[in-house]
Amino acid sequence: MGKSKGKKVSTKPPSGMRDFLPADIARRQHVISIVREVFGRYGFVPIETPAIENLSTLLGKYGEEGDQLLYRLLHRRDALTRALAADEVSEATLADKGLRYDLTVPLARVAAQYGALPKFFKRYQIQPVWRADRPGKGRFREFYQCDVDITGTSSLVAEAEVCGAAAEVLEKLGFEDFELRINHRELLRAMIRAAEVDEALEGSALIAVDKLDKIGLEGVKQELEERGLSPESAAKLLGFVCCEQLLEPGSPLYNVVDPQQSLTWGILGVAALSENEDQPQHVVVLEFLKRLLHGDEKAAEVLDELALLFELLGSTPAGPRIRLFPALARGLSYYTGAIFEVAVPDLGSSLAGGGRYDNLIGMFGKHEVPAVGMALGLERILVVMEQRGMFPELSEGPEVLLCWLDVGAPGVLKTAHALRQQGLRVEVYPESAKLKKQLGYADSEGVKAPVAAILGADEAAAEAITLKHLASGEQKRGVPIAEASATIRRWLEPAQ
Amino acid sequence: MGKSKGKKVSTKPPSGMRDFLPADIARRQHVISIVREVFGRYGFVPIETPAIENLSTLLGKYGEEGDQLLYRLLHRRDALTRALAADEVSEATLADKGLRYDLTVPLARVAAQYGALPKFFKRYQIQPVWRADRPGKGRFREFYQCDVDITGTSSLVAEAEVCGAAAEVLEKLGFEDFELRINHRELLRAMIRAAEVDEALEGSALIAVDKLDKIGLEGVKQELEERGLSPESAAKLLGFVCCEQLLEPGSPLYNVVDPQQSLTWGILGVAALSENEDQPQHVVVLEFLKRLLHGDEKAAEVLDELALLFELLGSTPAGPRIRLFPALARGLSYYTGAIFEVAVPDLGSSLAGGGRYDNLIGMFGKHEVPAVGMALGLERILVVMEQRGMFPELSEGPEVLLCWLDVGAPGVLKTAHALRQQGLRVEVYPESAKLKKQLGYADSEGVKAPVAAILGADEAAAEAITLKHLASGEQKRGVPIAEASATIRRWLEPAQ
Repeated sequence: MGKSKGKKVSTKPPSGMRDFLPADIARRQHVISIVREVFGRYGFVPIETPAIENLSTLLGKYGEEGDQLLYRLLHRRDALTRALAADEVSEATLADKGLRYDLTVPLARVAAQYGALPKFFKRYQIQPVWRADRPGKGRFREFYQCDVDITGTSSLVAEAEVCGAAAEVLEKLGFEDFELRINHRELLRAMIRAAEVDEALEGSALIAVDKLDKIGLEGVKQELEERGLSPESAAKLLGFVCCEQLLEPGSPLYNVVDPQQSLTWGILGVAALSENEDQPQHVVVLEFLKRLLHGDEKAAEVLDELALLFELLGSTPAGPRIRLFPALARGLSYYTGAIFEVAVPDLGSSLAGGGRYDNLIGMFGKHEVPAVGMALGLERILVVMEQRGMFPELSEGPEVLLCWLDVGAPGVLKTAHALRQQGLRVEVYPESAKLKKQLGYADSEGVKAPVAAILGADEAAAEAITLKHLASGEQKRGVPIAEASATIRRWLEPAQ
Repeated sequence: MGKSKGKKVSTKPPSGMRDFLPADIARRQHVISIVREVFGRYGFVPIETPAIENLSTLLGKYGEEGDQLLYRLLHRRDALTRALAADEVSEATLADKGLRYDLTVPLARVAAQYGALPKFFKRYQIQPVWRADRPGKGRFREFYQCDVDITGTSSLVAEAEVCGAAAEVLEKLGFEDFELRINHRELLRAMIRAAEVDEALEGSALIAVDKLDKIGLEGVKQELEERGLSPESAAKLLGFVCCEQLLEPGSPLYNVVDPQQSLTWGILGVAALSENEDQPQHVVVLEFLKRLLHGDEKAAEVLDELALLFELLGSTPAGPRIRLFPALARGLSYYTGAIFEVAVPDLGSSLAGGGRYDNLIGMFGKHEVPAVGMALGLERILVVMEQRGMFPELSEGPEVLLCWLDVGAPGVLKTAHALRQQGLRVEVYPESAKLKKQLGYADSEGVKAPVAAILGADEAAAEAITLKHLASGEQKRGVPIAEASATIRRWLEPAQ
């Protein structure tokens, strides 16, 4: 290797982007293959969409903050010349295409574009998305999403299928402690009405409520007031979204809401609890909310809908994981019905999230098309699995390194071919070198071939091979090449 | 479905980009899974790199034309404000990142970045690349490449392994008529020397030679002269790169080159042919070139190297496909040794191409690292396979549509779960509807479930299901749910 000349450029990937080396890919493929297998059994079919979309497709779907995180592609040639010659030059005039920000908007575009899609389009999509976010621990600018959605039906069976499939994926991956949190946009609205919050403040109030995990009760109360809610409304809203805590004497919620009010509520809660002893969490909380929101017809309707959804979910693998979570708001503005989130105790953010969005496809097409879906956070799933040591032993690398001495390279390649024909993954040491060096390479970091096959002059003459199991040191001389795989496979079988 | 309001945006993907619907994905996955399987058996391991690279990584690697086809990402926020406030605003000041243009430059960056990679790094990579080319038939702005490369060795075993793996992929896909064309950059240079072409015109002359397939002998001769070669040099160079045609009396080459000169050459060719009767094409042509380039030591060396490469290739699955093709030039400037291309008769362009590039990694790292690789053109492979009807029957869709009437949705979901537990791909009709409508849906375009499973009140009471094979109309009533998969699998087995 000679020194090379010229200016060197950085060889790191850009900030927030990652190279995936073979061991990374093996872990990603492990997860993705389980996702595909489970989604396939649920009748979902895969699609892919381009990385690049028209900005007219992307803008205005993710809220102002999302729009600012879009990567835009600079105009080229004549279009760039024209843009630069114009009186006003800005972000808006310099680009009309950008990189995909999520997989839901592309699905909505696809659902509106292709008339021949099935009425109930059950699609999954596993592709990277790009967000020009500030990079940080576990936050990347390029990351994969695994989305699963059903379009064309308002039936709650769709919610149940999406949640059931996601739960089965997580179980198959080995997660045993996840919680599927469920709420409903209309329930949130009913609580906002009941708290006498100005309708115009609804979106803003939900953003604050969504931070409960991060900034706590006091923090959210303060933020709600900063966002223009009266102290009474803020306290009431907190009481509703955290109503479960009213059932715990001494809960910090009692420090935040009005004592008189909370006493009244507490009594309603105890009644709901005593009438539903030994019932699951969601039955009790639904009952409690029915009393809290008594008199609001719309609320009664949505509580009935949620009760039915919980019943359906009980018949899916999601059943043991479900929890009604009235404080769940989820940021994206396009949700219209049930919303979900998957949480595990050791992750501040969620492993998956989704919900019903009945208006988004209509923004693209001639008709409103109802839809519901869930996005699995592949990167977060990988992080937690890594931290918990949940990966099985995975290898994409060669099973055999073919070493050779005192024979011609053509014979080496023929032998490699014969071994590969037996289905073995075989790497050939590419240069002529001392056997010790070749064996050392077989065992080196990044190669770690479990078996070395040695082809010398004697072996070549006998159309045989010497096999060496590197971990145990066991060696078999003169194995006929056609029989090599039997020995190798025995060595490679996991110990019982 | 109600009419929705608001301005509609186009729902087509941007020009030159494509949506892949489930049937497309099934075909793409079929090809990709064979690529992975074969490359894996050859000891190659997968990596992935980010879509976004620093422009400093990309620029200057693909020639001027390539640089112009790069997609650049517009600066954002402060960086954009600063760029727009500067005296000069241009493409160069508005972006410092761009989209991946190929997979070879990212590999070179990765090989230079990670010290822990194996000395002989055998990697494959299957990812999309982006080029802002004029879209056209079979030419896209986003398309997948499948690259396979070996870094760290100058041994020709690496060339043989790369070509062998590519040939085995194509055979496994069902290609029976492809040709692996082989040439060598140093052989091209020797021919250029022998044709007395000015060294400074070397690159330019090769660009013209590369067009032989497209513009023919006369066209290339004219272009060579336009590029500054003397008529004598142009004719000589054509005589060398097309020397095989000198062995065919009456070849059009005789109209282009000097008659006296071609007679002398013809005699050398006949001698090479007569001494190598019944030898493969490459033996004859190598022998012929040895005579044509007699006296050039460097040429003699490279012809010996090619002879050895052909011997090695003879021991791989590429053996029956190889052809020495002295006119093969390949556009990319980074090749330094052997170059290859895979051609099929019914495609104007190549199915795959590659070569040795011993200087590229050194442009990134501290050391020169030799490397050789091949890129399979996934999109072209798909086009030819489609045209020739080479795909097996592929389905990612549901095997069973679960229809239901007079039963509750929770029981339907339980039944779906039980069928899925048997490994079946099951879609649930999500709404309550007449049976006829549900069965019609099972058989509709885009769904095409081969089997309908019908759950009515009788079946639910008996924990059984009625199964209907839609193609034959065969129906089995009251099949115990646990036994459903046996019947369904029998129906789904391909007829013998």
